[in-house]
Amino acid sequence: MPRFLDPQPLTPEAFAPFGDVLGVETKTPLIINEGFAERFDDLAQISVAGNGGRPRFSLFRAKARRYPMEITMMERHPIGSQAFFPTTGAGFLVLVAPPTDTLPFPGMTAFRARADQGVNYHPGVWHFPLLAEREGDLFVVVDRAGGGDLEIATFTSDFPVLRS
Amino acid sequence: MPRFLDPQPLTPEAFAPFGDVLGVETKTPLIINEGFAERFDDLAQISVAGNGGRPRFSLFRAKARRYPMEITMMERHPIGSQAFFPTTGAGFLVLVAPPTDTLPFPGMTAFRARADQGVNYHPGVWHFPLLAEREGDLFVVVDRAGGGDLEIATFTSDFPVLRS
Repeated sequence: MPRFLDPQPLTPEAFAPFGDVLGVETKTPLIINEGFAERFDDLAQISVAGNGGRPRFSLFRAKARRYPMEITMMERHPIGSQAFFPTTGAGFLVLVAPPTDTLPFPGMTAFRARADQGVNYHPGVWHFPLLAEREGDLFVVVDRAGGGDLEIATFTSDFPVLRS
Repeated sequence: MPRFLDPQPLTPEAFAPFGDVLGVETKTPLIINEGFAERFDDLAQISVAGNGGRPRFSLFRAKARRYPMEITMMERHPIGSQAFFPTTGAGFLVLVAPPTDTLPFPGMTAFRARADQGVNYHPGVWHFPLLAEREGDLFVVVDRAGGGDLEIATFTSDFPVLRS
């Protein structure tokens, strides 16, 4: 009997051990532009300067995932944070685990992000690559340029199963 | 007779004097995540480190603009870049001018960004605040935290008129 992972709603409290939730519910906005915009300011702990790194803005265009899905690996960036925000009206799944060396990771947790929510993984947090809902979904990604910052853990048995 | 500003399509070539176009047409993607994503990598010159600055991730929720619109001011950030990307399926207008002190600015140019395009203003480039299409449109904004980086120019006559 595999261990099933069922996504829970993405809230700042539940996600706090892994990173920041990027959303309009997490902060009281500043009113700017003579009333023409609300600014939800400074939502992420962007950590990119380590080992000569710099901030990098990229777009990821994803293929849709299919569930249930056996989880056979996770990755992490020990030096830099990594932020994702959806731009095409669909939410996505987020699968994370706290920093650990035990395989497969204890504390693995799945979240369901809405179309108006993003996440910022803190350095060292294990995460599964992008889990998009629809073919062609486009995401803003803000992470560290500088190299030397990817660890991949491959599981060989006891694969957890992610359900949607 | 006022000077009318009519938006032109947003292309990297036309926008080059002002900053970067953030979009999937500007770069050949890297294939990542075992084929589950294309990465359009490092699309913006993010300049945020000056005068002790750091990168900042924010969300702007906008009110819709109405056109034609008299342009009576512009702003700029001499130290930091500022990137905008839409997330709610609507494009937006972009009004920019090269660094200058002549009022109202010569070389003022309007662009129409599609829903899958963003912009990154380079430091010192004059721009009008966010010109959203629909009430509640939400934008990712990546700019410099650190303060001391806002200049506002107010025009007193010869207002250009932005048309949609």
